[in-house]
Amino acid sequence: MTERTEIASLGEFGLIDHLTKNFETQQASTIVSVGDDAAVIDHFGKQTVITTDLLLEGVHFDLMYTPLKHLGYKSVVVNLSDVYAMNATPTHITMSIGISNRFSVEALNEFYEGVYAACNKYNIDLIGGDTSASQKGFVISVTAIGEVTPNRFVKRSTAAKGDLICVSGDLGGAFLGLTLLEREKKIYLENPQIQPDLENEDYIVGRLLKPEARRDIIDFFEKNNIVPTAMMDVSDGISSEVLHLCKQSNLGCNLYEEKLPVAEASKSAAFKFGLDPTVCALNGGEDYELIFTLKQDDYDKITLNEEISVIGYMTDLEEGCKFHTKGGNTFDIAAQGWNAFNA
Amino acid sequence: MTERTEIASLGEFGLIDHLTKNFETQQASTIVSVGDDAAVIDHFGKQTVITTDLLLEGVHFDLMYTPLKHLGYKSVVVNLSDVYAMNATPTHITMSIGISNRFSVEALNEFYEGVYAACNKYNIDLIGGDTSASQKGFVISVTAIGEVTPNRFVKRSTAAKGDLICVSGDLGGAFLGLTLLEREKKIYLENPQIQPDLENEDYIVGRLLKPEARRDIIDFFEKNNIVPTAMMDVSDGISSEVLHLCKQSNLGCNLYEEKLPVAEASKSAAFKFGLDPTVCALNGGEDYELIFTLKQDDYDKITLNEEISVIGYMTDLEEGCKFHTKGGNTFDIAAQGWNAFNA
Repeated sequence: MTERTEIASLGEFGLIDHLTKNFETQQASTIVSVGDDAAVIDHFGKQTVITTDLLLEGVHFDLMYTPLKHLGYKSVVVNLSDVYAMNATPTHITMSIGISNRFSVEALNEFYEGVYAACNKYNIDLIGGDTSASQKGFVISVTAIGEVTPNRFVKRSTAAKGDLICVSGDLGGAFLGLTLLEREKKIYLENPQIQPDLENEDYIVGRLLKPEARRDIIDFFEKNNIVPTAMMDVSDGISSEVLHLCKQSNLGCNLYEEKLPVAEASKSAAFKFGLDPTVCALNGGEDYELIFTLKQDDYDKITLNEEISVIGYMTDLEEGCKFHTKGGNTFDIAAQGWNAFNA
Repeated sequence: MTERTEIASLGEFGLIDHLTKNFETQQASTIVSVGDDAAVIDHFGKQTVITTDLLLEGVHFDLMYTPLKHLGYKSVVVNLSDVYAMNATPTHITMSIGISNRFSVEALNEFYEGVYAACNKYNIDLIGGDTSASQKGFVISVTAIGEVTPNRFVKRSTAAKGDLICVSGDLGGAFLGLTLLEREKKIYLENPQIQPDLENEDYIVGRLLKPEARRDIIDFFEKNNIVPTAMMDVSDGISSEVLHLCKQSNLGCNLYEEKLPVAEASKSAAFKFGLDPTVCALNGGEDYELIFTLKQDDYDKITLNEEISVIGYMTDLEEGCKFHTKGGNTFDIAAQGWNAFNA
């Protein structure tokens, strides 16, 4: 970067103008957008869905290996993923950021390029936010708003005994991408002459740095007249999420190792790092896939969709939450998901 | 505080359960609330209003003199103020916080006591959020959602020439409270034996630490069939806000010093600190009053409301934005509002 504009030279309002001037709203329902006290959206009888996420530098992302454009993109996508996980369609976001004067306007432009790329891809309006100085670190807060046909939203608590447990895409890739980048960071810090070795690792690095939300799955449900009985997105790891579904639905489950979808690229990366791909798939976070339960009668509707794997089924509460290995062993599922407060 | 529970001992989900377990939703429109991927609210043909604010420790608040309960209360109120400023009724909030392990669960309880007190007072449902570890400092992000009768919302850009400029309550008090508390903090840091001298300063301290949003003004509008032609809330200072109204409405204005509402307690505090009360009223932030413009024909409707002052009127763009002093001088209004990026 050759140019550097101090953020102070624009001021907060100048900065907001600067960051939003090229963005046009897309939703017919956007009545008032950025530039007033609040945004107004019209709903035509649909129900409104709201979700929010806070992303903090050093906790949720490391700018040493996260390009700002990717960070902007991901900040939006992880919120959209929560809206899709309600079987809803995201329509609007607000984006608040806190930034220290270590960032230039050019750096922020890159971040917002990613934000707007995600908005364009998913047909979302950015309708507001707040831009603030921070003493230290980059703070990102996104709220996503969506709409859903009345009473077609899908909660976590409504699975029934016998329902199939399904997951979209594949698991563990983002965690392996993180493992790789953390390893390369450590090598670099010890010896800055060594260039990062990311060859052939595009897949897992992309899973971490540029995840996508599974709009295609929600569209598939609608086209095929499927309403899952329960659903959530996979952000903390499938073992943690399946325990949420069981707890909130007051049920147990059986999960099968042989059914867990793991990409070939993830398997070979796990092998390289001496990790068990199954453990990565169960406990790795940030895959942003959808986990959902289906009535067994709906099984025929999903068999032709290669992006959906059936990984188990719901049982009575008394049967517990069980994981069956390829070798024939059975374990209780434990949430190994990351507890940020122990970090 | 005698008890101290480490946040890590609860984990994120335990913490969320803990913080939300005693909160019952109040709005009939709340269909899904805390505990799922996103919240669902129903609207019955009303329009949805969304606003969001990010509050960062050391930038927006100083925990040395801000009780956590007050901070929780204020975090909600400043967002509701933005919704009222649209002539809308807030109905729901999401609350995300980032906290370091310097905070105990008891400290967070105090914060949420304030959050829930504000929700109860203003009849708001807390419907979601995100709770995260932070490396340093307390991060608060609030999104407020409200509803408005279709097309009764009030923007900043729709004032007309000749409209009266009105403001609710009184101005400058929060800035004087901040001045007092910053002075006492400095004295304390220099000599911890000296106790803070806050006697008789309840009013200005309260204006800073426990502001209220002007729901009463919005209710008054509705009862008296008033729709302001433009409106915003006073967060950065009335001189900054009036320039926003003028710029966005493409107009000029005349403001009169003798008409600015300043409380007696604020006048005497300003006198004590050697400050000009008019400068405090013009440029002090965080009053969370409403500034709005009215057609002259509506003047009779507001004369009996002692909480509303007419402070000037809108003019043609070419006439500029003018401030007329008691002494008969005229100045161009300049935004002295705080630019956080220069701090």
